[in-house]
Amino acid sequence: MRILAVPLLAAALGVSLGAGCGPDAPGPSAPGGAVDLKQVMAQRGLTDADVIAAAKTYTPTGKHDEYVILASGGHGGNLVAIGVPSMRILKYVAVFGPEPWQGYGYGGLGDKLLYEDSKQGGKQITWGDVHHPNLSETNGEYDGEFIFVNDKANARIAVVDLKDFTTKQIIANRLVMSDHGGAFVTPNTEYVVETSQYPAPLGGAYAPLSEYKDKYRGAATFWKFDRSRGRIDEAASFAIELPPYSQDLADAGKFDSDGWVFIGSWNTEMSAGTEGKDKPPMESGASQNDMDYLHIIDWKKAEQLVQAGKTTDINGMRVLPLATAAAEGVLTFVGEPKSPHGCDVTPDGKAIVVGGKLDTHATVFEFAKVKELIAKKDFEGRDAYGVPILNFQKALRGQQEIGLGPLHTVFDEKGNAYTSVFLDSTVVKWNYNQIGQPTEALPVHYNIGHITAAEGDSASPDGRYVVAMNKMAQDRHLGVGPLLPQNFQLIDITGPKMELIYDLPIPLGEPHYAQMIKADKLKTIQVYTPAGTDPYTDEVSPHAVAAGGERIERNGNKVDVYMSVIRSHFTPDTIEVNQGDLVTFHLTNLEQAFDQTHGFAVDMYNLNVSLEPGKYERVSFVADRPGVFPLYCTEFCSALHLEMAGYLLVKPRA
Amino acid sequence: MRILAVPLLAAALGVSLGAGCGPDAPGPSAPGGAVDLKQVMAQRGLTDADVIAAAKTYTPTGKHDEYVILASGGHGGNLVAIGVPSMRILKYVAVFGPEPWQGYGYGGLGDKLLYEDSKQGGKQITWGDVHHPNLSETNGEYDGEFIFVNDKANARIAVVDLKDFTTKQIIANRLVMSDHGGAFVTPNTEYVVETSQYPAPLGGAYAPLSEYKDKYRGAATFWKFDRSRGRIDEAASFAIELPPYSQDLADAGKFDSDGWVFIGSWNTEMSAGTEGKDKPPMESGASQNDMDYLHIIDWKKAEQLVQAGKTTDINGMRVLPLATAAAEGVLTFVGEPKSPHGCDVTPDGKAIVVGGKLDTHATVFEFAKVKELIAKKDFEGRDAYGVPILNFQKALRGQQEIGLGPLHTVFDEKGNAYTSVFLDSTVVKWNYNQIGQPTEALPVHYNIGHITAAEGDSASPDGRYVVAMNKMAQDRHLGVGPLLPQNFQLIDITGPKMELIYDLPIPLGEPHYAQMIKADKLKTIQVYTPAGTDPYTDEVSPHAVAAGGERIERNGNKVDVYMSVIRSHFTPDTIEVNQGDLVTFHLTNLEQAFDQTHGFAVDMYNLNVSLEPGKYERVSFVADRPGVFPLYCTEFCSALHLEMAGYLLVKPRA
Repeated sequence: MRILAVPLLAAALGVSLGAGCGPDAPGPSAPGGAVDLKQVMAQRGLTDADVIAAAKTYTPTGKHDEYVILASGGHGGNLVAIGVPSMRILKYVAVFGPEPWQGYGYGGLGDKLLYEDSKQGGKQITWGDVHHPNLSETNGEYDGEFIFVNDKANARIAVVDLKDFTTKQIIANRLVMSDHGGAFVTPNTEYVVETSQYPAPLGGAYAPLSEYKDKYRGAATFWKFDRSRGRIDEAASFAIELPPYSQDLADAGKFDSDGWVFIGSWNTEMSAGTEGKDKPPMESGASQNDMDYLHIIDWKKAEQLVQAGKTTDINGMRVLPLATAAAEGVLTFVGEPKSPHGCDVTPDGKAIVVGGKLDTHATVFEFAKVKELIAKKDFEGRDAYGVPILNFQKALRGQQEIGLGPLHTVFDEKGNAYTSVFLDSTVVKWNYNQIGQPTEALPVHYNIGHITAAEGDSASPDGRYVVAMNKMAQDRHLGVGPLLPQNFQLIDITGPKMELIYDLPIPLGEPHYAQMIKADKLKTIQVYTPAGTDPYTDEVSPHAVAAGGERIERNGNKVDVYMSVIRSHFTPDTIEVNQGDLVTFHLTNLEQAFDQTHGFAVDMYNLNVSLEPGKYERVSFVADRPGVFPLYCTEFCSALHLEMAGYLLVKPRA
Repeated sequence: MRILAVPLLAAALGVSLGAGCGPDAPGPSAPGGAVDLKQVMAQRGLTDADVIAAAKTYTPTGKHDEYVILASGGHGGNLVAIGVPSMRILKYVAVFGPEPWQGYGYGGLGDKLLYEDSKQGGKQITWGDVHHPNLSETNGEYDGEFIFVNDKANARIAVVDLKDFTTKQIIANRLVMSDHGGAFVTPNTEYVVETSQYPAPLGGAYAPLSEYKDKYRGAATFWKFDRSRGRIDEAASFAIELPPYSQDLADAGKFDSDGWVFIGSWNTEMSAGTEGKDKPPMESGASQNDMDYLHIIDWKKAEQLVQAGKTTDINGMRVLPLATAAAEGVLTFVGEPKSPHGCDVTPDGKAIVVGGKLDTHATVFEFAKVKELIAKKDFEGRDAYGVPILNFQKALRGQQEIGLGPLHTVFDEKGNAYTSVFLDSTVVKWNYNQIGQPTEALPVHYNIGHITAAEGDSASPDGRYVVAMNKMAQDRHLGVGPLLPQNFQLIDITGPKMELIYDLPIPLGEPHYAQMIKADKLKTIQVYTPAGTDPYTDEVSPHAVAAGGERIERNGNKVDVYMSVIRSHFTPDTIEVNQGDLVTFHLTNLEQAFDQTHGFAVDMYNLNVSLEPGKYERVSFVADRPGVFPLYCTEFCSALHLEMAGYLLVKPRA
């Protein structure tokens, strides 16, 4: 709908309509400061400290945020966009599961991604466990074009286009049975990297747990990104076979370390849990060793070996064998303490920071040392699979005492690192160039997992804000039943000390990881132009109609309805078919004005699509239930929105 | 996870850990007011007015809101809980569609509701268009126990239990093909009322549009609520056949008007759109008449006639025929101008306020007059279906000039009404006992649909807050693509003038209607007690296990796994079955501590359930894909959460 004439007219005439009546109004409070702040505070029981905190976070109505967090939705299967500093949630983007508001999974074009492309072993999988979204990068900087997310539960990667905040591709990994360290990008988004989590035979075969060491494996998959198409190119992708340790978080090198990828791991014990015997469960079985292995991968060398044909084919994927990777210097290990989890490359690309869940340090490796040791083949041994191992001390820049349970580390522009410390429930600030100096710990509420900083994973972090991504909110918000929201806490890092300034409950899913991008880097569109654009091809659909071209075509039991959509009617609005007909609605929203969105639903047929301005959509179904089915606009589009309706009549078989 | 020992210990020792370190910390800002407010404001570019607005809305970190909005999620198919005044979204509750975080629709117990009970015409329908949530009432007051929501697209009603914010029942209406005026409750929740929207033959039969007047009908369904069971009792429910006008919003009477229900309607023109001919589309075809009919239903009389057997059976529902309803005084009409939409009974039960989308008035009917006219059979005629019509003027209390496009009206405790005015984009405050007095109009941004007030539909509104539920947010928030969030605006109504104090983007779905309840009326549970409780029966499942009772039982190709779940392992954690086995996991979360939630997923099998503390869940599936499938905890539950995993091994057929 449009900004209505009344406020515009009033503005033109200089007439005041009261507070906050237009987009440029300064704020919604009493004009002229007539209300006394102290009086308001007294009424609301607010202290000075409360008001300072409010003032520091508040984004006045109608003003826009400076940053956008793009967070994984965890097992909500989606992506979450949050404005910073206001901490308003701006949008949930459906990725691995159906979502009817966005018309995703209810008969429209997106169904191909969701129900076909994303299948694993021939099975439809309609949820995902999204862990680590990663923004596309150009020269190590977020470029605001795409974001990639992984599905831990079902080893899939999705591409979300930030032009329209829509999922455009889902790729199922045919090698591994779960992933975790993904979707991380190389500095020019050459590759989207996905690493496995729980080992299993590559390619999905069966093998008993007694054959774990021989037949179970991990893998790092390098998905080639074709930026011109905005899609992953499966055929140009490859993978590297890894030992059956649980690969974990990963990060790509940049600058000096460009061409390298670093992957944490745990469970070098190769515990598969009890195995139904007297073995310990995985929580203790996998926590025996003091060190697991940071995987150091030379992906440019891997690329050369792949080009040279040194791969084997597994389910259509080119896989560089573990023995080759180990022998050719593609894969090298260095120890990392203790139950490692986070793995983050510093903005200058010179160091890699890892955190151990049962450790008290952030461990910092010096990339120059790592590189030199590898070049010199200065190894202290090899693991059971022949992978060379660097000496821990020789590779080290240092270890920073942090507290119990350091996980993930993000960065500002001044050399400071901010590490999430799960067991202590703190954010610890320290300097990766001055290891051993005093640190600052800020308590958070409670049990912080990941952490994100303004442009914090890029080559040039902004400082300014850090957000602690805490797990279950407990008492921080009103009770809404046993299943608790997570709790994001906004921290101001501009001052001499970190300051906690806002709590945001997450009302859906369990975000794991997020990136925070400068808002002005996002170049979203408002309408699809020209009218009739298919959002999955970015071209006008051959089935789109212009006004006057609407029609119903019948060929045997196939009925194609070429329908235009405009405020407030569908043309045609009456469609009569015979039971059993294959009906296809080709829908063109002819509007080109901002916000002239409609929806299109057919009652009782599980069909609903979203028709943003200019969008082409297509809905196909077999009209197998006879009767009278209202069809209507599902997006409140005008005063006569309820009247934007018609009927599908399905005549019963004689 | 638990509040960890470090902050508790520090508190016990009186050691400061910095700002906001415990639930009782006053706020997250600099201690002792060391930071200067003006300096902060200058840094952030905030005016005095901004800060006053911030202070008025801000709920400091760790403090709780006073009210909770329960809003429909529109075609998101869900329900949204929002804290007021902080306007933080606390939870999305899945209702008509699957949602994996809540483990709803991915193999668990809730699947029966979602995929079986809710079928229409034998078809699975996995979304809904939720319009009008209504809280259960006791003596006309919200009691905080249940909330009922309708699915406009597929004519269904759901019951959500506010004890655990979980959908417990979905009922498919077998009479009508869409609904709108629902789910409204009578003052003691005797009935949950659902009225149809787009007319169609009752019971789902086919009839061509040429038979619209004869064979198409509406209906009001009175679903009997059994509070002791917390479920609708289908067998004790009934419906009233209505003419084929589009029934719309509805409300139940209270006090003097208890026993009555009022339903707006539009399209007394009986436009079915173009019908594929030269007729006008519905938007103009249904906008010809100056008046449509407010439906006035004496439901206590209807109840008596139903008991007396005056019903016919349609698809198992007792339906009071239109002719009987018209003849026996159950159904009476009075004109309502122009394209009516909202229909709201005043808190004292003495008046009914209706708004016409193309009108400029709020029209107020005096119930005492209505009742007397009906008692005296003082009718000015009957419609084509024999329904008696009251004289508009005789039934009127008055008409308040409001502005263009009045929709819905809510109330405070002082006789004030707050009407949403769509075309003007305003909230207009007026007094239903002083019609004709000056009104106050507050511009909102933009295109307000519904409106909600603190306890505003109850017998005793609280005043204090009104929330404008505006449609597409346009420029109010950062761009996140062509599909825009809706925009809720919080309005302070305690002062002499209404004040707009906060904008909240709605990141998912398109809420239509909401109710706002005092937070302390919600009695949510934190854990299911005792351990092993089935949330759908509120009893301990016979399949729950205690520690030590875990086992795997095999009977032919049927495998039952009785599994306990506790931080951080599943027992058993290794399950080997044969391809084709019917596998059932019986899962008991043995924890009884607040927040000890786990999830349970099996990779590649589209299975995920949520296991809040004490909950029993059950997952059944055919192990038709051979291979090695990790199973793991999907809710971040402890430092060793990643280690909370095991394997399902499916041995291939020989």
